[in-house]
Amino acid sequence: VNAIDTSCAHLRVPTLLTDLYQFTMAYAYWRSGRHNEPAVFELFFRDNPFGGGFSLFSGMHDCLLFLQSFRFTDEDVEYLRSVLPPATDPAFFLFLRELDCSGVTLHSVPEGTVVFARVPLMEVSGPLAVVQLLETSLLCLVNYASLVCSNAARFRLAAGSRRKLLEMGLRRAQGPDGGLTASRYTYVGGFDMTSNVQAGFLFGIPVAGTMAHSYVTSFSSLEEVWPQVMAANGDHDNIDLISLTKGWLGRVCELLGAESGKIHEGELAAFLSYAIAYPHNFLPVIDSYSVTCSGLLNFCAVALSLFELEYSPLGVRLDSGDLCRQSVEVRHVFRLCSEQFSIPAFQSLLIVGTNNISEYSMAELNKKENEIDVVGVGTHLVTCTRQPSLGCVYKLVEVRGSPRMKFSEDPEKSTVPGRKAVYRMLDTEGHPFLDLLCLCEEPAPKACVAVRCHPVVGNKTCQSITPSQVSCLRLEVYTKGQVSLLDPVQHTHTSQPEDDWPPL
Amino acid sequence: VNAIDTSCAHLRVPTLLTDLYQFTMAYAYWRSGRHNEPAVFELFFRDNPFGGGFSLFSGMHDCLLFLQSFRFTDEDVEYLRSVLPPATDPAFFLFLRELDCSGVTLHSVPEGTVVFARVPLMEVSGPLAVVQLLETSLLCLVNYASLVCSNAARFRLAAGSRRKLLEMGLRRAQGPDGGLTASRYTYVGGFDMTSNVQAGFLFGIPVAGTMAHSYVTSFSSLEEVWPQVMAANGDHDNIDLISLTKGWLGRVCELLGAESGKIHEGELAAFLSYAIAYPHNFLPVIDSYSVTCSGLLNFCAVALSLFELEYSPLGVRLDSGDLCRQSVEVRHVFRLCSEQFSIPAFQSLLIVGTNNISEYSMAELNKKENEIDVVGVGTHLVTCTRQPSLGCVYKLVEVRGSPRMKFSEDPEKSTVPGRKAVYRMLDTEGHPFLDLLCLCEEPAPKACVAVRCHPVVGNKTCQSITPSQVSCLRLEVYTKGQVSLLDPVQHTHTSQPEDDWPPL
Repeated sequence: VNAIDTSCAHLRVPTLLTDLYQFTMAYAYWRSGRHNEPAVFELFFRDNPFGGGFSLFSGMHDCLLFLQSFRFTDEDVEYLRSVLPPATDPAFFLFLRELDCSGVTLHSVPEGTVVFARVPLMEVSGPLAVVQLLETSLLCLVNYASLVCSNAARFRLAAGSRRKLLEMGLRRAQGPDGGLTASRYTYVGGFDMTSNVQAGFLFGIPVAGTMAHSYVTSFSSLEEVWPQVMAANGDHDNIDLISLTKGWLGRVCELLGAESGKIHEGELAAFLSYAIAYPHNFLPVIDSYSVTCSGLLNFCAVALSLFELEYSPLGVRLDSGDLCRQSVEVRHVFRLCSEQFSIPAFQSLLIVGTNNISEYSMAELNKKENEIDVVGVGTHLVTCTRQPSLGCVYKLVEVRGSPRMKFSEDPEKSTVPGRKAVYRMLDTEGHPFLDLLCLCEEPAPKACVAVRCHPVVGNKTCQSITPSQVSCLRLEVYTKGQVSLLDPVQHTHTSQPEDDWPPL
Repeated sequence: VNAIDTSCAHLRVPTLLTDLYQFTMAYAYWRSGRHNEPAVFELFFRDNPFGGGFSLFSGMHDCLLFLQSFRFTDEDVEYLRSVLPPATDPAFFLFLRELDCSGVTLHSVPEGTVVFARVPLMEVSGPLAVVQLLETSLLCLVNYASLVCSNAARFRLAAGSRRKLLEMGLRRAQGPDGGLTASRYTYVGGFDMTSNVQAGFLFGIPVAGTMAHSYVTSFSSLEEVWPQVMAANGDHDNIDLISLTKGWLGRVCELLGAESGKIHEGELAAFLSYAIAYPHNFLPVIDSYSVTCSGLLNFCAVALSLFELEYSPLGVRLDSGDLCRQSVEVRHVFRLCSEQFSIPAFQSLLIVGTNNISEYSMAELNKKENEIDVVGVGTHLVTCTRQPSLGCVYKLVEVRGSPRMKFSEDPEKSTVPGRKAVYRMLDTEGHPFLDLLCLCEEPAPKACVAVRCHPVVGNKTCQSITPSQVSCLRLEVYTKGQVSLLDPVQHTHTSQPEDDWPPL
């Protein structure tokens, strides 16, 4: 959390990016002299998202940056003066101008932790008016980060550990910052890489991508290929790549019994141009016209030329139609070429699938025969179509040491009063099996000592449980205006990048 | 579009906030000498959102700011050098460093226009490599802005023109910028105001809001009210407000046959403190404990005190339970007080309803008896739960004057080749009835002259139609690197702010 980060944070989350009622309430607190009373708020969500059993908590680092940069400028205060009622005492604006988070302390679950509904994930304590003013921004920062991180984890669980997962949702995200947040936290949630360059730049996430259909359709003839020559890997003598590839195309058509008349010359030109530009990184999209009649044949011809020139093409991308069926056909052709032309590596070229993948269709990949190595996911991942909001809330639980509670016409909206400690209980194998909420003043549970507890859901009968280990779920990460602990992000990656990854 | 705006735009949409494949394609174009070939892309969506019949187009201004600020910094280029394949020619990075949108021209539908699926809403023309590089950012800026604007319009249609609509979704939005974009474009789509202060600051949208439950629950006794006195409107003599209100509370309980024992003293203290702070702007949330047993009684007592002191309280907010039923009960009590205490204005106090309102529940308000004057909408509005992405695409239609087309394994993903003109045909009453796509070189249709056309959906038989008026749907808004037309936003507001609005 350095100065540069903080200044950017202020631009991303301006201190005015909050609800007006935070200011009217702050004024009423100030007017009655209560603004500095010590208060405690808790942040939690009421239901696990996506009809599932867990969530991944995220957004803590963004919250720390926000707290660090929390200040009102003269311009902010002048605007507030123009929208708050004329009755507002001018001294209140001087008070706002001096406000910062130097009295605020934050306890938080570490980034990337598996968490559950109704467990307080953050505790924000400090002067009543200040911790009230923080509400909307903290909710905004945690809500979407945790939601999209949880969504990514569900995609990862559905995909299994073998497949590589690429996040590519920027264009469909809810605004530019939504896209950047998605790239950042889907990586935390288990994705391997992103198409988002700015996310790579800011967060060091591996970036990937090769070409779109527009690249392919921009070519119409082999005359557009330039240069038309290329040297073999490590060599300097140029070889006529067009003739070489035409030769391979003939052999491929013969092998597969394909009609050369249906092959799109523009597509071949596009593939050749790309191969000349990036001979080590050839992975074209092959369904701009027809996979079986054109794209696959053109790919094989160019890839065989590259192999002959001692380069290693990477594979293909399929972007429409039945990805499973097509991947099987493509792999079959790869195996035929591998055998026919004695190129072992040809059979294990990558097949990337991208076509409106949902969590459901990701899970289907494990049931249907397919040869897809890498899956790119966009819309359903980043916008969380199944449930596009997590519904975190921020509730007052204590003022001046005395507990606070809200009742409600909707019973589930009632709150649990008092400042709490949250313990994660682990079994003999080190697996967490229960999160225990106590009041702060209650003694902490101890390993191997039975403790009686009341479940908040299901059978509410009092139970006795004995943990093998006990850990505090939350850590004090911000103490009286200073970042006190910046824990590393807990990555849930089930697969590690290989040396030749990302495919570029 | 001034210098300050542009510098902010660059921070919101950094030029690297795009997909990596835009750079690999740009390099391949550059490598084959094709980067400056004149190219034309079209931006459109394939299906009207929310299962409906229309969308509102939005995001054009953001696109203009992005085009104006499109430049790569040295730091950007160094990062790209680190992630593009080592084979990339170093001269390409010099080319990127010099790149801008001075060769780009944009035709766009004006902000806020009603538009339909498959009609090209933007046409982006310029050097092939540049207009390719713009794809992801333009899509990202148009997709969500248009989606949330359309969603707001549907809420407005469901609400009818009478009710005031407040957007209050920031805390549930997909990131801070998602929340700001939502506030901005739901206003364009027909909302009256927002809770989002930054949106008010940046875009001049009326802001509103008074208090949350935390404000109410932070009070526990009347001793926390300070000062406990208040002068009548326009007067200087302080009156003991606590005694005054206790007197009114007794009369209200008597009138309604209510038990004073169930009244929450902390809630009364909260209402009094707020009334003292903002006597002209009293609109508390009344369901923190129980509307009928506490909140409504406390409100009436404080509101009657304010009326006696010649202030005008505004009304109440209901935030849980059956809003319709409760609003009827509340209005009934308002009428009783109005009559009993001879205060005509009491019966027409505002009732604000906020409780997870969806488009469906908004429409239900017109079928069920209720007395809700203002509806606040959050989650369902800003995250567009029914369909959280619009699915705009950006397709190449022409290169060097020659049309381009993509076929696809999914027939609906095939594109219509060639650069087009789009005409909106109006009937004798001035209502639009058809959008006509022609190739640019075709003659424009003329008013009162029959033209033959092929519907793209439904009955595809050729039809003859005769418009009474013809207008161009798109305007040239950006010409060779310069903003050439900044048209006013077309507000679709069905109601105008009143003098006493927003309620603060």
